Amino acid sequence: MMDRRRFSRTLLGAVGAAALSPRLATPVTLSQDPPLINGPRLHGWLKEFSQFGIRPDGGVDRVAFSDADIQGRAFASSLMKEAGFQVRFDQVGNILGRLDGSEPGLPPLMVGSHIDSVPAGGNYDGPLGTLGALEAALTLKESGIQPRHPVDVVVFVNEEGGKTGSRTMAGELRPEELELETASGFTIGEGIRRLGGDPHRLAEVRVEPGQVAGFLELHVEQGAVLERTGVQVGVVEGIVGIRRWNVTVTGSANHAGTTPMDQRKDALLGAARLVEAVNGVARSMEGSHVATVGKIQVTPGAPNVIPGEATLTIEIRALEMGKIQEVFEGVRHEADRIGEENRTPIVTEEFYLSAAAPTDERFRRWVEASAEELGLSHGRMPGGAGHDAQAVAHFAPIGMVFVPSVGGLSHHPNEYSRPDDIEAGVNVLMRALLKADAELNRGSS
Amino acid sequence: MMDRRRFSRTLLGAVGAAALSPRLATPVTLSQDPPLINGPRLHGWLKEFSQFGIRPDGGVDRVAFSDADIQGRAFASSLMKEAGFQVRFDQVGNILGRLDGSEPGLPPLMVGSHIDSVPAGGNYDGPLGTLGALEAALTLKESGIQPRHPVDVVVFVNEEGGKTGSRTMAGELRPEELELETASGFTIGEGIRRLGGDPHRLAEVRVEPGQVAGFLELHVEQGAVLERTGVQVGVVEGIVGIRRWNVTVTGSANHAGTTPMDQRKDALLGAARLVEAVNGVARSMEGSHVATVGKIQVTPGAPNVIPGEATLTIEIRALEMGKIQEVFEGVRHEADRIGEENRTPIVTEEFYLSAAAPTDERFRRWVEASAEELGLSHGRMPGGAGHDAQAVAHFAPIGMVFVPSVGGLSHHPNEYSRPDDIEAGVNVLMRALLKADAELNRGSS
Repeated sequence: MMDRRRFSRTLLGAVGAAALSPRLATPVTLSQDPPLINGPRLHGWLKEFSQFGIRPDGGVDRVAFSDADIQGRAFASSLMKEAGFQVRFDQVGNILGRLDGSEPGLPPLMVGSHIDSVPAGGNYDGPLGTLGALEAALTLKESGIQPRHPVDVVVFVNEEGGKTGSRTMAGELRPEELELETASGFTIGEGIRRLGGDPHRLAEVRVEPGQVAGFLELHVEQGAVLERTGVQVGVVEGIVGIRRWNVTVTGSANHAGTTPMDQRKDALLGAARLVEAVNGVARSMEGSHVATVGKIQVTPGAPNVIPGEATLTIEIRALEMGKIQEVFEGVRHEADRIGEENRTPIVTEEFYLSAAAPTDERFRRWVEASAEELGLSHGRMPGGAGHDAQAVAHFAPIGMVFVPSVGGLSHHPNEYSRPDDIEAGVNVLMRALLKADAELNRGSS
Repeated sequence: MMDRRRFSRTLLGAVGAAALSPRLATPVTLSQDPPLINGPRLHGWLKEFSQFGIRPDGGVDRVAFSDADIQGRAFASSLMKEAGFQVRFDQVGNILGRLDGSEPGLPPLMVGSHIDSVPAGGNYDGPLGTLGALEAALTLKESGIQPRHPVDVVVFVNEEGGKTGSRTMAGELRPEELELETASGFTIGEGIRRLGGDPHRLAEVRVEPGQVAGFLELHVEQGAVLERTGVQVGVVEGIVGIRRWNVTVTGSANHAGTTPMDQRKDALLGAARLVEAVNGVARSMEGSHVATVGKIQVTPGAPNVIPGEATLTIEIRALEMGKIQEVFEGVRHEADRIGEENRTPIVTEEFYLSAAAPTDERFRRWVEASAEELGLSHGRMPGGAGHDAQAVAHFAPIGMVFVPSVGGLSHHPNEYSRPDDIEAGVNVLMRALLKADAELNRGSS
């Protein structure tokens, strides 16, 4: 705690907004006062990186296991080696670049993200967190700041196609997933071999609780909350849990010309009322949860036939699984009412569940304190999308930092984060990493 | 008017409910008092007819221009010939079987329907009106009742695939329709040739106003109104007009996990509110009109993406085109409100219009009077589906009689009308035909 307060006093006035402009930043040479990261270097890396899988529209096709992915991985590992990190590849293909710690026997702190993209994606979702972690660790090394824990800068395999790398570390990858074809055209098993891994030796990748001291991930926000509220640093409260249901509304298909309005069992009318109810129930409850109907189909589906059946999906996300259940129960209650009033029974069947992964409260505070020291605005928010940190949470405490994405765009060629926001986020990441390093594994004191 | 009152007095008490059971019916031999039709004969014809295109499930595949259609037409024309009617085929393939009238120079009364079915249809939609018309005319002939007007029993071509026969009579068939492929696999032009017609001579088929004195069509109700209300005879007020619109609701596709509820532009939510509004507006207005959303699609259409666009159809039917417009304006008003409140603009584009065809008020009264005479319950109702009478209305006054269809089923293998209801309907048809014959073309008196 002493350290954190000292940083506050030392840096708050001196740096402030100026820290966000690399041209104005004053080099910090004191080994105990964290320096600022090298913004131009990081932006250069990101620009070089955008060439791997570049698309005519400026986006990237760098799906996991593709040639572009392999090129990007080679680039990232060569940067690590040039920086003097010890680079190793585990059997699933995760890349770990280690900066040694000063205290023997301490488990490593991990920091990083992924580098693969969705098809027609952008260059920030993933690479920012990976190259940002390397920049943060390299800045420490160049500044002569040796952490107590070893620091592993990590590049996880195939985040977009199922978090293969991080979930293998967590022991969550199911054998049958190896047979799944990915967007690259290769199965996950084939892809792992392409990266030099061995699908038969994935048990060796597994990390048990206690073997990693903690994990920090920097990522672009995949919404527009930060931009809209003018906040530079998102302090992620956790990665939301997700549940999804298939819903069937059963009416009676009938001639749209000859069936009077009061004689209908219109499945789409029931479905429409349910869509409204899903929205209404979610909005009537306090919290950051979300509920979505993203898909709907009706049969027979002709302009002159009253729909006999409507199928749709409901997805609910929240930081606590209990909140998801609460929202669902509200929706289910409305579904019963609508089904009865409309004479179109509504059946819901769950088909997907992803457990919530709250971040560690200490990490949240370290991120907040780091932002304070740098004079950056910050706010707590849920992480609504999936991230590698979610898998890592199974074996280590996690923290996450979000930086704004212009227009909230992500998984899109136009995905973009401003240089100032990127530097702010990476500086916060570096400081939060130092705070974690200073405070974790302090024995009984 | 004298005739009608006399029929009333003579038959109301004598026949009544007993008339509906062929076994109990007393043969009427007086030439001026209409007899009852021969129920067993008609049921026999209908049963024989059900063999043309019969399906394992008891329904029929007798789409226009198919072999089954051609077999059915041959059967119908041979019945006409056996009955002593002069049979002719026009150049589109309509079959007309004539019973001569007593007054030279009067235009014919037409009575009939079609015999083709939809794919996987039933045996009542069409054949009942055609064979029923023949049974009614044959009963008159057998009873020595010669009408003043010639009576043409008509079998229209391809009702289910576009009312080809009746619309050609009305001069409505567009040349390009000849190229349309029908459910038979043949184009309409090819089909006309298969029936012995000539697609180049369709102008000869055209009937000008005044050339036909009037038209009566008996048809199964294609809804469940008669069955539900326990009414045996539907006095059709007209064939409803139809307008259809394509609707686009434009929102913004976004990540369902990272976009807060209050930041969404959810196209499906807008569409759901519109579906509710279409129903609500229609039900809030007095009348027999109907409004339906039968089709909806959303893009991208994934459980974890907020729909960016929803497309749907609106169909409104009513006996008066003005009522359709009134309902649409109510819907359009709601669409504007919803679009603004939900931040998802709603655009409507009309793509189909079919004009309403009211029946002639005199025909409605003749049908009602006939039902009264027979002690049958009756009620006025709109004809919600399309019928040949709709085309005929372009050149002659029309009347329509509906009989109940069990469960309101139509266009379905299980389509079924009870023998009693059939006989009641055909007896009404025959009497209404006589009343029309007696009262139409009375000069200036």
